[in-house]
Amino acid sequence: MSDLPQSVQINEEGPREGFQFEKGPIPTERKVELIDALSETGLNHIQTVSFVNPQRVPGMADAEEVAARFERKKGVAYTGLWLNEKGLQRAIGCGRLDLSGSISLTASEPFLQRNQNRSLADNIAMQHSMIRLYQRHGILIERGSIMAAFGCNFAGDIAIETVVAMVEQIVDIAEEHDIQLQVISLADTMAWATPLSIKQVVGAVRERFPVLDIALHLHDTRGMGIANAYAGLEMGVGIFDSAVAGLGGCPFAAHRGAAGNVCTEDLVFMCEEMGIETGVDLEKLLDAARLAEDIVGHPLPGSVKMGGSLATLRG
Amino acid sequence: MSDLPQSVQINEEGPREGFQFEKGPIPTERKVELIDALSETGLNHIQTVSFVNPQRVPGMADAEEVAARFERKKGVAYTGLWLNEKGLQRAIGCGRLDLSGSISLTASEPFLQRNQNRSLADNIAMQHSMIRLYQRHGILIERGSIMAAFGCNFAGDIAIETVVAMVEQIVDIAEEHDIQLQVISLADTMAWATPLSIKQVVGAVRERFPVLDIALHLHDTRGMGIANAYAGLEMGVGIFDSAVAGLGGCPFAAHRGAAGNVCTEDLVFMCEEMGIETGVDLEKLLDAARLAEDIVGHPLPGSVKMGGSLATLRG
Repeated sequence: MSDLPQSVQINEEGPREGFQFEKGPIPTERKVELIDALSETGLNHIQTVSFVNPQRVPGMADAEEVAARFERKKGVAYTGLWLNEKGLQRAIGCGRLDLSGSISLTASEPFLQRNQNRSLADNIAMQHSMIRLYQRHGILIERGSIMAAFGCNFAGDIAIETVVAMVEQIVDIAEEHDIQLQVISLADTMAWATPLSIKQVVGAVRERFPVLDIALHLHDTRGMGIANAYAGLEMGVGIFDSAVAGLGGCPFAAHRGAAGNVCTEDLVFMCEEMGIETGVDLEKLLDAARLAEDIVGHPLPGSVKMGGSLATLRG
Repeated sequence: MSDLPQSVQINEEGPREGFQFEKGPIPTERKVELIDALSETGLNHIQTVSFVNPQRVPGMADAEEVAARFERKKGVAYTGLWLNEKGLQRAIGCGRLDLSGSISLTASEPFLQRNQNRSLADNIAMQHSMIRLYQRHGILIERGSIMAAFGCNFAGDIAIETVVAMVEQIVDIAEEHDIQLQVISLADTMAWATPLSIKQVVGAVRERFPVLDIALHLHDTRGMGIANAYAGLEMGVGIFDSAVAGLGGCPFAAHRGAAGNVCTEDLVFMCEEMGIETGVDLEKLLDAARLAEDIVGHPLPGSVKMGGSLATLRG
């Protein structure tokens, strides 16, 4: 019937996505509380903080303090995000995170300009210098990633050939530095993907680079997140980024176009109900989702935390 | 890549689903306003009211008045819902609706008992008497439907064979009355389906009854609605029930397990973006979705009304 994987790797990004996005100040201890709760769910990869400019993202000004205070559970990788050398230096400096590097390009130049104030050429140059920094610190680079791979609010549709060419660029950059990439991550940063375009883009990348595992970073802005994840699963994709409770997007924020990642517990529910192992205890994850809602103080988008799992109904 | 249909038939159930479900009283003229707005979107099948016991469903006590007041647009079928002979008599009596009959069974006896206070045997007997009533009034019967076809909060998982056997029962009942069924509708009444079970059940029914068109009635309680619709599309399903704005379910209602149908505009968005014709003007439908939200006075679940369509972004 399809090519569903036996198990999936879920990278939890809720703490970083959510606390970066929320407007109100969230006390450091509550951020730590959520990370600690997530550590008990069976999730083995949790992105905790981002090291970004506190002027631009005040909600992440306490990144070092959060990183210092959560409890490290064995078997869980705790990661962080950075967008430049300064951020990486902070991540290294805190000494509490599992660091790995990636080579990151963006399929839309207008978006890159707005988001990071860089041209495509500048961004490629920067990747080289980041790689040198990673290598100097002995940080492994196994992942390439492409933002806006399925469309862009400022550039419109992105051609499949553009994405494939960008994967080629990433692979070339990696080879220049003797890096053996394992994973290519395709991000639907502005929620343009449909299940069909997921299949088309993943299919084209897989055909050109069959040795690379494909990861999907999906946003749910237009309600396609879970359907897009399913389409990915059917193409054999086995790595997903997601956010507990759909943190990072609030459908009732004043602005249009909530930015939320696909919701972790909804993704886990779908996978487990279809017989795909996630390693996650759904009931504990639902508790963490409700905790996230309590912390931000407003409803969050995830559905299963409201509809409930089926385990108790099966008796 | 798959068996996506070229076009789909969408049966809008928002006015009936939503106004039946909402707690507060909604003025009759606002119900009429929404139906009239939906008539302008290109939707050609709108379920307007249900003729149920006003003691049990006070929000539908004005069904006759609503039916009398909305404007009938040419090319649009305006339907109603009833659960027994009394309801059907009211629907006939109002003289404003496009009536069609269906043979309706439920895959879970405990649910049938709770929902309609009938045993499976009683329900079959009742289908026969409803059919005689339909035939006496010259009402066409083209559709069979199965509630709780994918699982039940009170009976647990429903075996695929149970559903196939129930379709056989429906076909037998139809043949007894010289009825040529066209459509079999499978309802995920309590939101137990996953994309995989949609494919399995639809596949089994289609294999046994290749001449019947399959329709899906999907609920989004656990966030699987759009993914399940996509799985249906991939199996060639071309008929869907849905509700504008996701009316019928409020994620922030006091109870757990909002009952909402899959959201019409999110379904239209997905279909149109994948090149499947719906006949619907998405921008007008988004206006109707926002009107629905204004009428009920609280946020409704649909995503595209918040995230926005892609048409304007493409420029």
